[in-house]
Amino acid sequence: MAWFRSLIRFSVTKSSSSSSSPSIRPGTASPFSPFPSPSLSWLAAAHFSSGQPLAHEPPAVVPHAGLGPTKPGEKPRVVVLGSGWAGCRLLKGLDTKTYDVVCVSPRNHMVFTPLLASTCVGTLEFRSVAEPIGRIQPAISREPGSYFFLAKCTGLDADKHEVQCETATDGPDTLEPWKFKISYDKLVIGLGAEASTFGIKGVLEHAIFLREVYHAQEIRRKLLLNLMLSDVPGVSESEKSRLLHCVVVGGGPTGVEFSGELSDFIMRDVHQRYAHVKNYIHVTLIEANEILSSFDDRLRHYATKQLTKSGVRLVRGVVKDVEARKIILDDGTEVPYGLLVWSTGVGPSPFVKSLELPKAPGGRIGVDEWLRVPSVEDVFAIGDCSGFLESTGKPTLPALAQVAERQGKYLAGLLNRIGKDGGAFANTAKDMAFGDPFVYKHLGSMATIGRYKALVDLRQSKLHWDDLWGYNSAGGKGLISCWILELVHLAIGISYTCDQLEEQILCGD
Amino acid sequence: MAWFRSLIRFSVTKSSSSSSSPSIRPGTASPFSPFPSPSLSWLAAAHFSSGQPLAHEPPAVVPHAGLGPTKPGEKPRVVVLGSGWAGCRLLKGLDTKTYDVVCVSPRNHMVFTPLLASTCVGTLEFRSVAEPIGRIQPAISREPGSYFFLAKCTGLDADKHEVQCETATDGPDTLEPWKFKISYDKLVIGLGAEASTFGIKGVLEHAIFLREVYHAQEIRRKLLLNLMLSDVPGVSESEKSRLLHCVVVGGGPTGVEFSGELSDFIMRDVHQRYAHVKNYIHVTLIEANEILSSFDDRLRHYATKQLTKSGVRLVRGVVKDVEARKIILDDGTEVPYGLLVWSTGVGPSPFVKSLELPKAPGGRIGVDEWLRVPSVEDVFAIGDCSGFLESTGKPTLPALAQVAERQGKYLAGLLNRIGKDGGAFANTAKDMAFGDPFVYKHLGSMATIGRYKALVDLRQSKLHWDDLWGYNSAGGKGLISCWILELVHLAIGISYTCDQLEEQILCGD
Repeated sequence: MAWFRSLIRFSVTKSSSSSSSPSIRPGTASPFSPFPSPSLSWLAAAHFSSGQPLAHEPPAVVPHAGLGPTKPGEKPRVVVLGSGWAGCRLLKGLDTKTYDVVCVSPRNHMVFTPLLASTCVGTLEFRSVAEPIGRIQPAISREPGSYFFLAKCTGLDADKHEVQCETATDGPDTLEPWKFKISYDKLVIGLGAEASTFGIKGVLEHAIFLREVYHAQEIRRKLLLNLMLSDVPGVSESEKSRLLHCVVVGGGPTGVEFSGELSDFIMRDVHQRYAHVKNYIHVTLIEANEILSSFDDRLRHYATKQLTKSGVRLVRGVVKDVEARKIILDDGTEVPYGLLVWSTGVGPSPFVKSLELPKAPGGRIGVDEWLRVPSVEDVFAIGDCSGFLESTGKPTLPALAQVAERQGKYLAGLLNRIGKDGGAFANTAKDMAFGDPFVYKHLGSMATIGRYKALVDLRQSKLHWDDLWGYNSAGGKGLISCWILELVHLAIGISYTCDQLEEQILCGD
Repeated sequence: MAWFRSLIRFSVTKSSSSSSSPSIRPGTASPFSPFPSPSLSWLAAAHFSSGQPLAHEPPAVVPHAGLGPTKPGEKPRVVVLGSGWAGCRLLKGLDTKTYDVVCVSPRNHMVFTPLLASTCVGTLEFRSVAEPIGRIQPAISREPGSYFFLAKCTGLDADKHEVQCETATDGPDTLEPWKFKISYDKLVIGLGAEASTFGIKGVLEHAIFLREVYHAQEIRRKLLLNLMLSDVPGVSESEKSRLLHCVVVGGGPTGVEFSGELSDFIMRDVHQRYAHVKNYIHVTLIEANEILSSFDDRLRHYATKQLTKSGVRLVRGVVKDVEARKIILDDGTEVPYGLLVWSTGVGPSPFVKSLELPKAPGGRIGVDEWLRVPSVEDVFAIGDCSGFLESTGKPTLPALAQVAERQGKYLAGLLNRIGKDGGAFANTAKDMAFGDPFVYKHLGSMATIGRYKALVDLRQSKLHWDDLWGYNSAGGKGLISCWILELVHLAIGISYTCDQLEEQILCGD
């Protein structure tokens, strides 16, 4: 393991150099005097292992590292995999007096997905749609036994009550990841789903999804880059049109909302600030069936009319192949593009598929009415990665924030209750009565379509403000409810900021 | 040229596909009806060259493209190379009724460098220190003859009054750059300087400079990444200390300001939000001579005391070698680091060195009292890339925003006057009287040192608020004066935002 090796090398030079460490000359540095003498000892302590012989040098990475099983006297440990709507809502609700909480995720923030499309063109700021996990559950940065680990889960040993993890350090200076293990008393799998490409060649290489903040940032960057490149002398007419042709594949809420935002951006900003090329930029939305198929017919037609009116070209077609500068539809039509955004729904991740657990329709992790994974002890699954087992006779719930959020909230309450009843530790809740099962009540669907217009579909439910407020508390105080915020945003396109640092860093800045 | 080739390939497939374009079926798409019939014709027009035979296909990149010499009846053209303090102040001041302005720069925004250090730890937002050029000089996005080109200058033919340029498209999807030429009536070189590494091995690979917004973003990202990694199980004590050891090389204003900001961040944020590892993080500032050598002795000692008090370790040393995880001082001392920021001053860029123009001391482009480059016609140089010729008997001015900004302002006035007197076109100002030469008056120096403390050195000048306000107008209305803003920021650490898009995109988001 290169990472490990390099550290060993490094500690050798370190200890050898400890002898020469006094050669940092405190005395001589006139403007530095008084030279802080602690600094020298600190340098020694921190970096030169106080000159210990190499033999006693602690290895850079401790072997078999991790968190072992909780001992009597310690708090029971809930391990949460993932930091999406489900996982974060659970983290927020867990009683940290009863439990130590450990969150494992490659993302140190929660993304407020319903508003992500608005950040691509500057209607909202990136920070406005991201919330650091340390804000949602402060215990992870303060409590001795609670942690957030920037890592991904690579394996599960349900009998041993243990997960294997690996550090996630994507970025310019990616480090060789190192592995560690965490024992759990309760495990909650909230790993979400992955954007589905339907095995179409070139999607992963050339298209941009719209599920993470860094996706939105990449869309912004590319859009502006293309606007500027198309203005440089030497670009032919057809190449200008290609660079400024924004193609969106997938007519679900995300695709429609992004198309609407984009056409707003073109009418509002491009016409004013890129006058030289304003007539070359166009938006095309490609959908195999019907846009917003989950919405009521009249709403769908209204959306179609509005989008067309604001210049979005709706094309019915099936994408067969994606190349660097054009996509090919199944009828052979070639559509050149400068920006390609892909939002054709989601499916289970390879890791979820690989887990040897009972599965629900669609390859999701199967759960019972209490969101338990049967056949293994103390394991729960929530959000897009989970689904009711057929044996429950319940339908698979849609992959929506509102489902995930409600499941997280329910499970937090359930675990807190189990904790109070003495079932918090591993294998102690076997024969416990779990009380009311999870029941999902759909509050309705909403999609913005640009020009501060939106569709709200409330067929399946009567809307109560109480429900709304119940639904709100999702993302912690930094995040206002998607409902309320989308309404505000429709009204005045408001952009607000939470004075936090993390989300800016690790989401691709 | 791959870019060119791929476009030719691409236009072949395009025209061949034009036959199949009608196969986009307007009729069939019920939710899409009314299907916008213009869209089809637009697709044709834009991408299928209206089915023209390949022979008539316009080449993707027009050969010998660019802006030719201005013709009678057209406005004379001022070409500005660079978008720093000097270039932007000039752009802002140029009379666009008299001139067409063309700015060539790989950066589409101006960076408010004096506040960059504050953005690394979230005291200020990135957008607060960047201003889009389109805001500073709106003509470039509106006037038919004025442009901003996202490109870098690669050559100068002073006799032909022409510059050679090349598109700059750094980023994930870098395009093969294409070349073009721009004829100028007046050329202003404001290309600034480059961070100097003194030829020390490994600096470019492992250290981060602090001159661009994307530098600050990378520092943020790395700092937070290291904080999180150091909390993951399996990291040894010494490795934790390495990851969280922030080393700053160079004790000038930038290095000192960054060290101060960093120690503030540690005391304010890390202690609260990274409690698990708060005792491992340290800041070391390494300087070969004296910190803030340009400042008064008493101020220097005050700074030393304040920095030491807030936990910054000041080490006098000369860096000999930089490796991935440690730096080696000339006395052999090895200093492991997790974050290395390099701010040891600036020097001329290779392109400036390569220009066959008279040079001033330090390899800068030599100018006379009117900022003209002698021996060539209609060429001026301002900012860090320029310096007075020895023949002028004037000293080389320091590489400060204050100097660059005043030179830009002066030259704008000079060019506007020349324009009114009929000397705007190429070779028409030969024997013209240029009036008052440029005279620099130093307003003083300022450096923040953390904890909302700062040094203000006014030895060389009596400070007038009028001067201050004169100094302000630098960055356009989005940017408040560095003086005023630093004072406000010292007072309340204010963070303000300009609702612009560009600067976020192309500076590394």
